[in-house]
Amino acid sequence: MGRTGVWLLGARGSVATTAVLGAFAMREGAAEPTGCVTARPEFDGAGLPGIDELVFGGHDLSDVRLCKTAEHLARTGVLPGHLPGAFADRLGEVEHALRPGLPTGGPVLREDVRRVEEDLREFAGREGVERTVVIDLTSTEARSEEHPEHEGLDALEAALDSGGARIPASSAYAYAALRAGCAFVEFTPNTGPRLPALRELASREGLPWAGSDGKTGETLVKSALAPMFAARALRVRSWSSVNLLGGGDGQTLSDPAHVGSKTESKGLGLEHILGHPVEGPLHIDYVPDLGDAKTAWDHVSFEGFLGSRMTLQFTWAGHDSALAAPLVLDLARLAALAHGRGTTGPVPELGFFFKDPADSGVHGLVEQWQALTSWCSAPEEGSA
Amino acid sequence: MGRTGVWLLGARGSVATTAVLGAFAMREGAAEPTGCVTARPEFDGAGLPGIDELVFGGHDLSDVRLCKTAEHLARTGVLPGHLPGAFADRLGEVEHALRPGLPTGGPVLREDVRRVEEDLREFAGREGVERTVVIDLTSTEARSEEHPEHEGLDALEAALDSGGARIPASSAYAYAALRAGCAFVEFTPNTGPRLPALRELASREGLPWAGSDGKTGETLVKSALAPMFAARALRVRSWSSVNLLGGGDGQTLSDPAHVGSKTESKGLGLEHILGHPVEGPLHIDYVPDLGDAKTAWDHVSFEGFLGSRMTLQFTWAGHDSALAAPLVLDLARLAALAHGRGTTGPVPELGFFFKDPADSGVHGLVEQWQALTSWCSAPEEGSA
Amino acid sequence: MGRTGVWLLGARGSVATTAVLGAFAMREGAAEPTGCVTARPEFDGAGLPGIDELVFGGHDLSDVRLCKTAEHLARTGVLPGHLPGAFADRLGEVEHALRPGLPTGGPVLREDVRRVEEDLREFAGREGVERTVVIDLTSTEARSEEHPEHEGLDALEAALDSGGARIPASSAYAYAALRAGCAFVEFTPNTGPRLPALRELASREGLPWAGSDGKTGETLVKSALAPMFAARALRVRSWSSVNLLGGGDGQTLSDPAHVGSKTESKGLGLEHILGHPVEGPLHIDYVPDLGDAKTAWDHVSFEGFLGSRMTLQFTWAGHDSALAAPLVLDLARLAALAHGRGTTGPVPELGFFFKDPADSGVHGLVEQWQALTSWCSAPEEGSA
Amino acid sequence: MGRTGVWLLGARGSVATTAVLGAFAMREGAAEPTGCVTARPEFDGAGLPGIDELVFGGHDLSDVRLCKTAEHLARTGVLPGHLPGAFADRLGEVEHALRPGLPTGGPVLREDVRRVEEDLREFAGREGVERTVVIDLTSTEARSEEHPEHEGLDALEAALDSGGARIPASSAYAYAALRAGCAFVEFTPNTGPRLPALRELASREGLPWAGSDGKTGETLVKSALAPMFAARALRVRSWSSVNLLGGGDGQTLSDPAHVGSKTESKGLGLEHILGHPVEGPLHIDYVPDLGDAKTAWDHVSFEGFLGSRMTLQFTWAGHDSALAAPLVLDLARLAALAHGRGTTGPVPELGFFFKDPADSGVHGLVEQWQALTSWCSAPEEGSA
Repeated sequence: MGRTGVWLLGARGSVATTAVLGAFAMREGAAEPTGCVTARPEFDGAGLPGIDELVFGGHDLSDVRLCKTAEHLARTGVLPGHLPGAFADRLGEVEHALRPGLPTGGPVLREDVRRVEEDLREFAGREGVERTVVIDLTSTEARSEEHPEHEGLDALEAALDSGGARIPASSAYAYAALRAGCAFVEFTPNTGPRLPALRELASREGLPWAGSDGKTGETLVKSALAPMFAARALRVRSWSSVNLLGGGDGQTLSDPAHVGSKTESKGLGLEHILGHPVEGPLHIDYVPDLGDAKTAWDHVSFEGFLGSRMTLQFTWAGHDSALAAPLVLDLARLAALAHGRGTTGPVPELGFFFKDPADSGVHGLVEQWQALTSWCSAPEEGSA
Repeated sequence: MGRTGVWLLGARGSVATTAVLGAFAMREGAAEPTGCVTARPEFDGAGLPGIDELVFGGHDLSDVRLCKTAEHLARTGVLPGHLPGAFADRLGEVEHALRPGLPTGGPVLREDVRRVEEDLREFAGREGVERTVVIDLTSTEARSEEHPEHEGLDALEAALDSGGARIPASSAYAYAALRAGCAFVEFTPNTGPRLPALRELASREGLPWAGSDGKTGETLVKSALAPMFAARALRVRSWSSVNLLGGGDGQTLSDPAHVGSKTESKGLGLEHILGHPVEGPLHIDYVPDLGDAKTAWDHVSFEGFLGSRMTLQFTWAGHDSALAAPLVLDLARLAALAHGRGTTGPVPELGFFFKDPADSGVHGLVEQWQALTSWCSAPEEGSA
Repeated sequence: MGRTGVWLLGARGSVATTAVLGAFAMREGAAEPTGCVTARPEFDGAGLPGIDELVFGGHDLSDVRLCKTAEHLARTGVLPGHLPGAFADRLGEVEHALRPGLPTGGPVLREDVRRVEEDLREFAGREGVERTVVIDLTSTEARSEEHPEHEGLDALEAALDSGGARIPASSAYAYAALRAGCAFVEFTPNTGPRLPALRELASREGLPWAGSDGKTGETLVKSALAPMFAARALRVRSWSSVNLLGGGDGQTLSDPAHVGSKTESKGLGLEHILGHPVEGPLHIDYVPDLGDAKTAWDHVSFEGFLGSRMTLQFTWAGHDSALAAPLVLDLARLAALAHGRGTTGPVPELGFFFKDPADSGVHGLVEQWQALTSWCSAPEEGSA
Repeated sequence: MGRTGVWLLGARGSVATTAVLGAFAMREGAAEPTGCVTARPEFDGAGLPGIDELVFGGHDLSDVRLCKTAEHLARTGVLPGHLPGAFADRLGEVEHALRPGLPTGGPVLREDVRRVEEDLREFAGREGVERTVVIDLTSTEARSEEHPEHEGLDALEAALDSGGARIPASSAYAYAALRAGCAFVEFTPNTGPRLPALRELASREGLPWAGSDGKTGETLVKSALAPMFAARALRVRSWSSVNLLGGGDGQTLSDPAHVGSKTESKGLGLEHILGHPVEGPLHIDYVPDLGDAKTAWDHVSFEGFLGSRMTLQFTWAGHDSALAAPLVLDLARLAALAHGRGTTGPVPELGFFFKDPADSGVHGLVEQWQALTSWCSAPEEGSA
């Protein structure tokens, strides 16, 4: 498909570093594509850009060097010990393509989004990529209030031109990305491109976007198990979930203001799949000791024939970065395909990857899988 | 669809008693159809016989009265306490339709199968049913050796006419059922209608059959979870399973000669779904203390991006009878539909219900569900 | 030891009803003393009052009749189905000994505590008991603020005589009980007799008391497991706990104001046993669907030799009433013994039964057991 | 206490390598003594040899070099990555003190045991140690038959002098060790010094020994939890255990001939602690994929008040070598203390460390802990 830019917001974090390093390792044959959905044979003829055609850059507020993050991940067992050293030169090249991130907190100014847009254009020009996919991997934002400038593109432009727009940083990035002609993937629970004003912009520019909140662990299992209860007419009475996280995202989520958007994403699918609301707590706890490890426990109480009470429990234990990183590469490739096909607006067929799939009511994992693979193997839209 | 006979082999056991009592309770509005797959709206227009059109009879080697089994199940918390008393009269009527089962162990004689066949014809005539579905709920048989009379119908008939056929009791029942024009469902891991000679008979008589080994618990969860690993390109390294059972089937399965056929059924699907063999033990243990309760623990070790090692564990705790009984009613209704449609031979679309689906390579639960519902809503075969 | 009064605060609740019904059942040989610590041989010669010497009465704000509560518990599987009917007459007799509870919320008036005291004296006189043990089984109170009248008996008396004392209802009951010459057991996390003013009163009256917060489930397991980590020099890094409750106490605890005192009790022992603070969340969630069932999941992350990281998880699933009720009978008998021996003030040797053992730093279960059995078999205090 | 020899049978295995490397790391301050029981303050004044006074040697049938084993353990995450390199020189010195192990299978000849004895004397002389503790870390042996030469020392000596003694290799090592004046620790389920003939020899030589089968994981948790059920008068109905192992010992134990001795050791304590036999399977499964990791799942079904049925499940996940290695160092130090005190025969106070404590009926962990610490702080035996 040709050289494709992958611009990572939060480029110095664990997930981004793992994704970039993993792409280099796979390219050189130093790692298998385990965990990469698009490496499955179903995607062979879809015309996705190759792993070796991806070119990385990004924004980050931190200035910790990529190789330092990589070494830390290796030391704590998240990455194989030899990888950071083996690809130090390649990480160094990516280092040169990183730019300072947008400040968070205050209103977003015209000059902020212009600078982001220029960063993107400059990257695309220098690297000679055909297209760029921007992927949000920044920390979970506090839930934001609604403002008039969210509701339409004209109002948003006006606010940017006067005192500044009261939009989250994730939406400012999305605005700049769409203005620069890039596809956008919201991998966090952040608002990103979901504002009506940005939907309008994507539509006007004819650009695809996808999101939100990568389905990497406990929710993934939920979306595989809930259809089982539904198909078997077993009545789920309560579904209680506990997530223990030690990584950076865990810290952010220990703040109740941030956890709200996350738990809302996580809870969405269950009611859709089961067809009725289900009680039970949903906790996300920050346990620093766990580091990049994440553990989830779910307890499902359900009722069977003649009121018989039964339970299913599961414990999921994995590494956050290792679960998320291959999906980032998958989404880069798939969003590039959508861009190449001229798809406009949210791409519901990418719902397979998300806790809160934009413009899609399909939450069951297998149905999402079928939608994804059908979409990929379909003749290109607009080609007729 | 009209009155439909449901003839249960092992009619005095826990599963059969729960199914019969549950059918009465639902008919009278004393119970919801929780756990009944065919009560879902997807099956509304399929032309299935109503729960109130099912008429029960059966064989059993035991002579414990149905109401005694029901009272025991109520006392141990498997059935609601008031049900056995509320439907004592209806159980009494079914009691009259029960006949002594076939002896197990020696060769099957012509007079044995003739007697079973007559029981079935007599039942159908007396009850005025349009058709009868025979469902095997007997204990798991020891794995049987192969014999020449298994391989063809002529050889089987000849053996029955001379010293006797060396076939399992389940196959003798299937032979008699097919001779009597009945559909047959193999709900246990027993051989039943799978002998080539019986396949030939079903084909000659134009009768449908389905099986085998009802997917009621741990394997059900497996078939929902394994497709998740496959779709996400996560490499399952080992999958260890432990089943603790206290009921009658548990006791049978504590004998290594019987457990073989069961564990083979349970292990079948995983390799199909994942595409490669997976190591790990599969235990079925008899723990009498547990009574009708069954508990399973599964430990899945898998590999993700860059070799990251992760685990998923689940514990399933339920009541065997409550899990199996509604599926028995579902299969009675669905096999009657197949019979009415004139379907011949194994019905792979009923694989949704089985650990070892006959003539079907589909093991993923959602795909099985889709196949089942498509089949049900299809225009009747042979109607053109 | 002679007839002993057992006065239950919250007498119409599940725990109290189960305790009373169980005492009758054991007395008549209709139930084994499973779960009754004092039925173990270690307590044979200690001079405890017999189960058949206990006489029950109590306070409750509810007016649901005991037999109704018992029937509900039987219907939901908490009690054997036949028990409520078999002991309906005996429950009826206890019904006559129940009195309306203290209102909660406002300041406690002199007339309130006088009425409670009179109820207790009237009960003791009518039933001819040698002594009475008052046991608090009421719902968890909101954490209370401190007030000057908590700090000394004179100030408390003065407040009662003027506008009223700002003390929790549990402390008002404890005041009245001590004034009436009764031993007091605080089985909930409520303040009860822990106010300095009430410690002074117990001391002045020469009466024993014990508490608080019965150790019935997850904390019990913690107190058995934590000493294992300590003895093996394994470093616990985090200990996360989730409690799912459906019963009445669960509902109260879903209110953050109430959950505080409960989680403080639960967390106390771990740090004592391990010798250092341990991070990790402690959740108590109300899941109405679970009814009287309670389930807890604990996840312990620990470090071994050369920094090796390991985990222990456990899931505890039981019935709240069945866990608590036998301990109520145990504490009635043991507090009566303390009363008979003339023990004054908190009895640290009863710490075995509590999450937050009053005046005891011993939290390891086996050490608590040894302290309890030594105390029981010791020659009576004051007998020299 | 002076220089102490630690002679490891199976010296090139994972446990031995981890113990030796860990001792060097602690000596140099490169590792904390986490997991080392004797590093707790309770042992400070007991007169144990210091970690820096331990001198290592051993036998092994393998000729894989220690540094290779160490590197493999580091690569698979069992040991910190930098340790093997940091202590390569020290491992090289130990390498020189290793000798070829005894062949297994045939009868043991006089020259075999003489050679082992000479190895031990030569080591002690060269290293100038005051005493040597021999610790068996070899693979689990097949259960052996009984032979007349097991029953007495004279018969054993006679057999060694004629065609050879039919004793396991572990017992041959124990014979040689005792003849060489060494204390002996049986850390595996092997027979070792338990033969009557060897008990006689230990007694005659005035030497201490301890065993058997190090309590490193699932049995450790059992010994902490079982006393809880006993103290609370909760009736354990079934206790089912599954152990998944990937390491060398796992492979040996996949052979039913070897698993027997192991499961017997593991099952011993439960019945002792609970006071009655308990049903339930005990599986040890070899799952190569797990490597040095071991995972155990236990399911306990128990009965409480009025027959209420409840369950406790736990999952233990750890690294075999990291769990066993510090106990090897502990036992080396403690057996040296026993040797120095002139203790003769089995030392029941060391039962804390074993699944099958020799000559001790104490299985509860806390009681074992109390016995161990009392013994250590007691005035030296024989010193009066």
